[in-house]
Amino acid sequence: MGLEIDYIFHPKSIAVAGASANKDKSGYRFFKSLLDLGYEGALYPVNNKGDEILEHKVYSRVQDIPGPVDYVISCVPNNAALDLVDDCAVKGVKVIHFFTARFSETGHEDGAAMESKLLERARQSDIRLIGPNCMGLYYPKEKISFDSSFAREVGTVGILSQSGGNAMEISHGAAERGVRFSKVLSYGNALDLNEADLLEYLADDPETKVIGGYIEGVRAGPRFVKALQYATQRKPVILLKGGKTTAGTGAVSSHTASLAGSREIWKAMCEQTGAISADDMDDLLDLLVGFNFLSDTTGFNVMVSGGGGGSSVLSADECEEEGLFPVPLPEETRTKLIEMHPFFGPWISNPLDMSILGGSGLTIYSLLETMAESSVYDTVIVSSSDRMPRRRSDTDTSDPVENALKAMDHNLEISRKTGKPLAVVKREGIPDSEEHLRIQQAVQKHIIDEGFPIFPTMRRAARTLQRVTAYYLNQRTSES
Amino acid sequence: MGLEIDYIFHPKSIAVAGASANKDKSGYRFFKSLLDLGYEGALYPVNNKGDEILEHKVYSRVQDIPGPVDYVISCVPNNAALDLVDDCAVKGVKVIHFFTARFSETGHEDGAAMESKLLERARQSDIRLIGPNCMGLYYPKEKISFDSSFAREVGTVGILSQSGGNAMEISHGAAERGVRFSKVLSYGNALDLNEADLLEYLADDPETKVIGGYIEGVRAGPRFVKALQYATQRKPVILLKGGKTTAGTGAVSSHTASLAGSREIWKAMCEQTGAISADDMDDLLDLLVGFNFLSDTTGFNVMVSGGGGGSSVLSADECEEEGLFPVPLPEETRTKLIEMHPFFGPWISNPLDMSILGGSGLTIYSLLETMAESSVYDTVIVSSSDRMPRRRSDTDTSDPVENALKAMDHNLEISRKTGKPLAVVKREGIPDSEEHLRIQQAVQKHIIDEGFPIFPTMRRAARTLQRVTAYYLNQRTSES
Repeated sequence: MGLEIDYIFHPKSIAVAGASANKDKSGYRFFKSLLDLGYEGALYPVNNKGDEILEHKVYSRVQDIPGPVDYVISCVPNNAALDLVDDCAVKGVKVIHFFTARFSETGHEDGAAMESKLLERARQSDIRLIGPNCMGLYYPKEKISFDSSFAREVGTVGILSQSGGNAMEISHGAAERGVRFSKVLSYGNALDLNEADLLEYLADDPETKVIGGYIEGVRAGPRFVKALQYATQRKPVILLKGGKTTAGTGAVSSHTASLAGSREIWKAMCEQTGAISADDMDDLLDLLVGFNFLSDTTGFNVMVSGGGGGSSVLSADECEEEGLFPVPLPEETRTKLIEMHPFFGPWISNPLDMSILGGSGLTIYSLLETMAESSVYDTVIVSSSDRMPRRRSDTDTSDPVENALKAMDHNLEISRKTGKPLAVVKREGIPDSEEHLRIQQAVQKHIIDEGFPIFPTMRRAARTLQRVTAYYLNQRTSES
Repeated sequence: MGLEIDYIFHPKSIAVAGASANKDKSGYRFFKSLLDLGYEGALYPVNNKGDEILEHKVYSRVQDIPGPVDYVISCVPNNAALDLVDDCAVKGVKVIHFFTARFSETGHEDGAAMESKLLERARQSDIRLIGPNCMGLYYPKEKISFDSSFAREVGTVGILSQSGGNAMEISHGAAERGVRFSKVLSYGNALDLNEADLLEYLADDPETKVIGGYIEGVRAGPRFVKALQYATQRKPVILLKGGKTTAGTGAVSSHTASLAGSREIWKAMCEQTGAISADDMDDLLDLLVGFNFLSDTTGFNVMVSGGGGGSSVLSADECEEEGLFPVPLPEETRTKLIEMHPFFGPWISNPLDMSILGGSGLTIYSLLETMAESSVYDTVIVSSSDRMPRRRSDTDTSDPVENALKAMDHNLEISRKTGKPLAVVKREGIPDSEEHLRIQQAVQKHIIDEGFPIFPTMRRAARTLQRVTAYYLNQRTSES
């Protein structure tokens, strides 16, 4: 169904129209990103000034390029866009991505008129359009990107985003927490390829296991609902809707000229199709992280390592408020703990308050493991805060980075030993020294490399785990 | 009413009982913190091993100390606590802060019995107790602290926190965002001085303008409600309740042995008294930041600089969802914008989408200022994201820190020029380089030094501004 547009994402050659040698221009940045990612097809800069850009000969028009051109990225001004389509038609170009903006979204009548002509002209020549007014394609497997700093590694999360800025926010924000992408598509005004096309495509795309999206308006309502239904039957679909409120709707029209629907209609559509609706950007990122790293969650009972006493209390509250159950220790576990220590055994509870253990001779990790082993618990959440001094350990070395890594790894070991899914809560502020920065970076990288999701607060971890678990439980119910 | 306990916080001499030369022990850390902060009274380490600690002669018992002793910090084991009270009674000590723990909170009967005796013995000798099972006092003006890394500067936010860990989390977390404290009191099991005493004290304390608190259980319900009423009539009171849920209530009993009440009772009490109830630690920090920096908010209409297009749309949604009104530009402002630019003037909207301005010759700041000038807007929120490339400016130098500072200051200038309250939204991840860290630190410091509140997301900024504004509007209504 959706894969008929797959050819769009596999160009053997790309031309950047409106390419520039000026580092501040997008016509430079698009070209540079393709070079930096190491795009392996033929790559041509096009502008009417000639000369060279980054050691590539500049062609003055697309049809002057000697070889075939599959894909054109347009950075030309809007009044040159129609001529570009004509040039591309002559050359047999299959796809134009219009970064070029200032069409219908300006609210000016001539902008909307120009946009209509663009579509008409492209359709006459069987050229498919991405945009206008968007960042286009980030596809690490094909080494195509609109930003030099995006991750090179290939992942399994596919994104459609009406907004280019939000596509960047998602790509950077989720990557920081270990998510890697199959494809990220920024599609702007959705003149030709729209949210329904892209959703159907990602639903059938074997490289994509989880779909995330930022959508402002829906072009063809009934078709979109069908596409959403189709996609949710195949993979988790998490969508953030822009323009849920009166103020947001107003902002949408001057951004991508979409007609934003009401919050109620959106909510009903998500419920009906099983799509997961994200509250805001942080929530979308959390859900992408959750679905990227967790798939084997079997229930809502959670064992929590809560930090200090007050933090344990708040952890318990937040888990319960978000629909997880930090249930008390079962009798069997209590017996084991009392065997480990007659004084602390009866006192220890879930969430584990680590601050009570001084002088006990018990290690936090042996306790956590004993607790997590119980079949009562489905999932484990461990929390650590930069703001609390770390308790010195007997195995500490003189290297603070190594010590921090070792301490964190003890936490991860609980999941390896018990086989239970585990999420890490890592509260942190701006590092106050370069050493602190190195510790933050190293610990973050280690957690990700070991395959665990990171959340900045207990509430966000709990809220995400609840929805990921509900999704998979529901899947299993419908399959059986 | 509350100031009768003021003497407690002005000791002319402090002894640390159970002081230690071992850096990993709390008996070292309490002593070291007082030295590091530069406590100016007499300071004595006490333990039964003698010798010196940090160049201070160690006394084996409190009564061996030559001069008077006003205040004792106890790090002795719980079974030595009663003897310590007796020693202090002989010496005429006025206050003992028991960091010493493992009393009623253990759930063991003998712990609870020991605790009762402690109170009885202290009352016989007119000794007031802080704790047990708490971190005690951080009072920058008197250079008293339980943590060497706490800010030295004096502020006007007063905190009572049943949990020591949460007192640290608040002190570090709010300080990072520029809040400074009058006094922070961690009071643990509240055996003698309890939440009602401390609330009344902070209500009358002329050094405290805003009260924040973390409370797990309430010892004497009716008296606490009275104290809360008294405090809220004098200053903003923001409270985070630990143990709102079944799971949280369970965690409370093993932490501070308090009886946590239900969420409904708490909510009703806050509504009745006008106390502001924080949802969680982040929310408490946000409210402290908001009340610390903002007092002159006059209404809910907000002018937003929203970043890029998608981010502007989400900003509008989040403001409206949290009860602020990002109302459209008034006709008068529209006319001015059209005069500034016939093409962009009609297109620009609130929130301002900065990504549309390329090639316009308009500066973001002149637009924001023109928009913010309108009497329609009560407040301004400006947002900046680390994840988006900053647009190069004509005034850029080769120093990236200086450039970032200049760009941020243009935002702050809007408030200086229009006199309107302004909040900064700063989204940021772990810095990816030392330069990036230096930029984050410098920009953060500049915003704080200039007296503006920082929030990590638009939703949190909006949610906080809404409640701060509602508080001050309500104040004005009741005064008039």
